[in-house]
Amino acid sequence: MSTYELYAVVMAGGSGTRFWPASRRNLPKQFLPISGSKAMIRDTVDRLKGLVPMERILVVTGAVHAPLVAKHLRKLPPENVLCEPVGRNTTPCVAWAAVEIARRAPHSVQVVLPSDHVIRPAAGFRKTLAAAAEEAADSGALLTLGVQPSFASTGYGYIERGELLHTRPGAQICGVTRFVEKPDRERAEQFLHSGRFLWNAGIFVWSTPSILAALREHAASTLSGIEEIVRAGDNATLTRVWPGLPAVAIDVAVMEKARSVRVVPIEFEWSDVGSWTALPDVHPADAHAHVVAGGAELVAQDSSHCIAYGPKGEIIALLGVRDLVVVHSGKVTLVIPRERAQDVRWLVAELERRDPRHI
Amino acid sequence: MSTYELYAVVMAGGSGTRFWPASRRNLPKQFLPISGSKAMIRDTVDRLKGLVPMERILVVTGAVHAPLVAKHLRKLPPENVLCEPVGRNTTPCVAWAAVEIARRAPHSVQVVLPSDHVIRPAAGFRKTLAAAAEEAADSGALLTLGVQPSFASTGYGYIERGELLHTRPGAQICGVTRFVEKPDRERAEQFLHSGRFLWNAGIFVWSTPSILAALREHAASTLSGIEEIVRAGDNATLTRVWPGLPAVAIDVAVMEKARSVRVVPIEFEWSDVGSWTALPDVHPADAHAHVVAGGAELVAQDSSHCIAYGPKGEIIALLGVRDLVVVHSGKVTLVIPRERAQDVRWLVAELERRDPRHI
Repeated sequence: MSTYELYAVVMAGGSGTRFWPASRRNLPKQFLPISGSKAMIRDTVDRLKGLVPMERILVVTGAVHAPLVAKHLRKLPPENVLCEPVGRNTTPCVAWAAVEIARRAPHSVQVVLPSDHVIRPAAGFRKTLAAAAEEAADSGALLTLGVQPSFASTGYGYIERGELLHTRPGAQICGVTRFVEKPDRERAEQFLHSGRFLWNAGIFVWSTPSILAALREHAASTLSGIEEIVRAGDNATLTRVWPGLPAVAIDVAVMEKARSVRVVPIEFEWSDVGSWTALPDVHPADAHAHVVAGGAELVAQDSSHCIAYGPKGEIIALLGVRDLVVVHSGKVTLVIPRERAQDVRWLVAELERRDPRHI
Repeated sequence: MSTYELYAVVMAGGSGTRFWPASRRNLPKQFLPISGSKAMIRDTVDRLKGLVPMERILVVTGAVHAPLVAKHLRKLPPENVLCEPVGRNTTPCVAWAAVEIARRAPHSVQVVLPSDHVIRPAAGFRKTLAAAAEEAADSGALLTLGVQPSFASTGYGYIERGELLHTRPGAQICGVTRFVEKPDRERAEQFLHSGRFLWNAGIFVWSTPSILAALREHAASTLSGIEEIVRAGDNATLTRVWPGLPAVAIDVAVMEKARSVRVVPIEFEWSDVGSWTALPDVHPADAHAHVVAGGAELVAQDSSHCIAYGPKGEIIALLGVRDLVVVHSGKVTLVIPRERAQDVRWLVAELERRDPRHI
């Protein structure tokens, strides 16, 4: 068993509007109580409790969202928040965290994970992360966690699992045959039935020297830009260099190319909670298959299969309706059928023109 | 042409929940901007402008609603607000106003009208009221206005018109054959096709001596109770005597029995705005047949025939839905199909048990 410090990097740069009107440009999903009573980023950090102490958790977020990070993670040291001037996808984010952690603990291992996913139970997840960290420290490989698919999703990237290399308590370590972009319906069905494909959940485990070496090999210009930023340590350098870094996902820039990549299949309850219709995946439904979140109270009659979201102290009252998403948040009331929930972006686009205060 | 002072009595005792969650126990419909940008009671008083000066307008309302009357009718003299300790239907209300007006102007004429109806255009309505007042002064008859039916409503009482007695500028004066309670569907169809039946709109015109005489004949105990209240002029007498007065509608207690009753048919745009589904009767629809009221802004795509209500500064956003009523008001969001809008009372009953703060 190796000796190393385990760090966590929480990627909180998302800024989607798929949860509009609850999520706004200045209040993305990770800062909302979408999956429980606390902000998702808070749940993400709480999930690491006992595995990674707060002082070894780094959060990478948009500069405008730094106050929200401080609000929801009061015990996080301010120097652990890395503020991106603009979103540049995950490669610069991973590189910045890696260089910053190398400065503090060159021989550490890192867990890198999104701030807005649901994974349960937390204890099992920590056990898997700990085993993956051991593997990363021992082997120097870049590890990714792969979710056992439960249906033929066309919304996720896939990882084709290779042979089982060995088993640790809490984790099977497998080779990776290939990464596959989001497939069409037919290929997704094939993937599901083959039993060899896993959803790419965007959760990574690697040692700090390994990720730095891989970045140097496959994303050299990004890494040197980041090194310049960390060396200078001032905002002028950050805002000058950062926007020029290529906006590429770490999967594409590094994982698909790196030589020693392994995957740890996980069978936990997992959801990236991608839109309002994902709420039933992470909240228990009531006797009429309604799901309510955000703290509001639901009062429903002759209704079923609705998704309701509103703040604490508010009421959502439904009668004679089914399969609707009903949201009240910040002076906006939204009503949309469940099967069209992703079209909320059309309304966002319309309001962008008419009254962008509500976006 | 007779000489008399014209008074108006605005009946504002209603306390329904058919516009819940906009209307509440402490905020009934007449104090809401259901039909325009101002409270309905304000529109009702404004409609009399030029016909009845503010100092001759009396408002009868529930004691708890007196502050709302003052808020929406700032120029109304405080002594013109008669506060009912509890609702006792319209006979005690009419009697109280009659005795109070008799004290101030024994030979006056009164227009008595609900505070929460829509009648347009106001100028034509005033002309009709003025003609009816002349008739009341000249003849001593009790007049009621009857609305020319536009469909076979089973929700209103009807008045069977008698012969045309004479014509005044702005009003035809007809005899009354009989008053009829709300009919069933078949009779309503007969009424509509006969051409002789009018909706009873609850708008009355009479001279003060005539209504007092009719009350003395047909509602003697109510009148003497009211006279005791006005004579004493104190709250103790009011709260002691008032609750014992029979809760009867003036139509039933007096109009159906009185000897000299006349009806003035009106063909104005009229609505008692009885529920959310009446909003399209009093608001113009947009190109997709949506109606929005209360001050909120509607943003809709792929939607039609919805009724939206919310406060100024708020957005109601709809996509892919039709024939819904969507309301946000005071921490409650309501979604209900148009054809079930009257079932909102079920939700009110349910909340009454669970969390009556929202009623």
